[in-house]
Amino acid sequence: MVLYIVGLGLGDEKDITVRGLEAVKSCKCLYLEYYTSILGIDNSKLEAFYGVPVILADRTMVETEADRIFEEAKDVNIGFLVVGDPLCATTHTDLIIRARSLGIKVETIHNTSVMGAAASCGLQLYQYGYTVSIPLFEGTWRPDSFYDRIKYNRAGGMHTLCLLDIKVKEPDYSKHTGGKLVFLPPRFMTVNQAVEQLLEVEGNRKEGVCNPEDYGVGMARLGQPDQCIIYGTLEQLRSVDFGAPLHCIALVGDAHPLELEVLKFFEVKPEQINTCKPLNGDADGNQSDEEPDLFNF
Amino acid sequence: MVLYIVGLGLGDEKDITVRGLEAVKSCKCLYLEYYTSILGIDNSKLEAFYGVPVILADRTMVETEADRIFEEAKDVNIGFLVVGDPLCATTHTDLIIRARSLGIKVETIHNTSVMGAAASCGLQLYQYGYTVSIPLFEGTWRPDSFYDRIKYNRAGGMHTLCLLDIKVKEPDYSKHTGGKLVFLPPRFMTVNQAVEQLLEVEGNRKEGVCNPEDYGVGMARLGQPDQCIIYGTLEQLRSVDFGAPLHCIALVGDAHPLELEVLKFFEVKPEQINTCKPLNGDADGNQSDEEPDLFNF
Repeated sequence: MVLYIVGLGLGDEKDITVRGLEAVKSCKCLYLEYYTSILGIDNSKLEAFYGVPVILADRTMVETEADRIFEEAKDVNIGFLVVGDPLCATTHTDLIIRARSLGIKVETIHNTSVMGAAASCGLQLYQYGYTVSIPLFEGTWRPDSFYDRIKYNRAGGMHTLCLLDIKVKEPDYSKHTGGKLVFLPPRFMTVNQAVEQLLEVEGNRKEGVCNPEDYGVGMARLGQPDQCIIYGTLEQLRSVDFGAPLHCIALVGDAHPLELEVLKFFEVKPEQINTCKPLNGDADGNQSDEEPDLFNF
Repeated sequence: MVLYIVGLGLGDEKDITVRGLEAVKSCKCLYLEYYTSILGIDNSKLEAFYGVPVILADRTMVETEADRIFEEAKDVNIGFLVVGDPLCATTHTDLIIRARSLGIKVETIHNTSVMGAAASCGLQLYQYGYTVSIPLFEGTWRPDSFYDRIKYNRAGGMHTLCLLDIKVKEPDYSKHTGGKLVFLPPRFMTVNQAVEQLLEVEGNRKEGVCNPEDYGVGMARLGQPDQCIIYGTLEQLRSVDFGAPLHCIALVGDAHPLELEVLKFFEVKPEQINTCKPLNGDADGNQSDEEPDLFNF
């Protein structure tokens, strides 16, 4: 039988490809990886649309209980669902290698990913360099290796896509009682937090890589009907409310005239500035509970 | 009404997303852009699957007769179909800007592109730098600006995705009689031609950017059932028959152990070397008519 590794795209249940839909409908059960990204809809909608049970698979399950998935895939078709494209990040490469080494037939079904959809802002994919991941700083843990990569991209005129941290199913040790783990609510890094951190690192390193007056594009919910793309200086983006997750930022390198023409559509408006509540300085991931205004193209 | 700009993905009619399929079925007619990429199937299959007429749109049509498309989109839904993702290259950005400036509602539907599917070889998308386009050298026209970009990527440890030239609907001036234009058969640059050109430029520039002993990954028909991925030195890839178009190459930068683990699956086999007919030195785009052997993972 087949282990299908299926990309779901970025928006909702209808962003799966026709080939992907045929594959999942042939499956006995589906595992949805939800620790590296999220869709804009509830999982029950996926289940209803596919007509197949969907099991949420967190990192622990994928890393430690993969054998169960492999065992099942020997007898029936099993689907492993990934938001975006399954091969966009290394996370699932290992799963595929292990399955193949066990003689399981694996079929990968591609879809769009944030790394493709980032072109929506007008910055050409050709002109992006290294993609960096920005981790959520906590306490004294403030790793800044992304700074060097942004610097190299920038020196070569390239744009940099910054993917922002996601914290899902973190144990809440303050509530660890009687051997039963309690989990913190999921946290998704915002454009604002990322900008704060970029500026903090710039303040320490002072190599002129990401200054408050440099331009970036904040993007939220790419590929979803309410996607939000705003172009402005880092100082401006720092206080714009981008609404619900997921967020990412593109740092602008040497932009071509055609790129600038598209970016103009997304230029920040004065009323968008200072719409987000002040961060509490510790980038702790708290987000406004209010419905965000939408700033769409 | 809506002008849908719909990505078709890379393989066949079933690689469209469910959302995309609903959109095209609502259209009065569909224009298929076929000068920057091709699907692995005949257009009649698309027409049959969508149940909507498909008109082939070449570069001249898109650039000069777009007004007709815009005029139609005022009264009925029109679809503009693009192989891969519509925003992956600048080509269609201008069309979208013009339509919007005319007050036409435009909706873009993403899909996977070669720039995403290139991760299939095991090289991580995060680690790619600038994407370069390699033009087919002809006579004394041998532009080599891609060399500098590959050099910069490589110096930073990044991989480089090289997209290869496509020549569609070129006028055959030798047969231009009686005012009626005759067109040359389409030409698609092969991995072999690209490697020849890379080595030629290296021979001229001698900056150690793409030597015969450097590693690359030749890829053909990515996302199609008979996709072919082969990892080897440029000297080895030079003589491997990759079969039907489209081809591309990834030049390997500093590869991580996990990347190397996947690349090993695709390592060139001795029997694959010297399977392509010698090029005639002028990289003129002639391809073998024989069915290629397939070297799949």
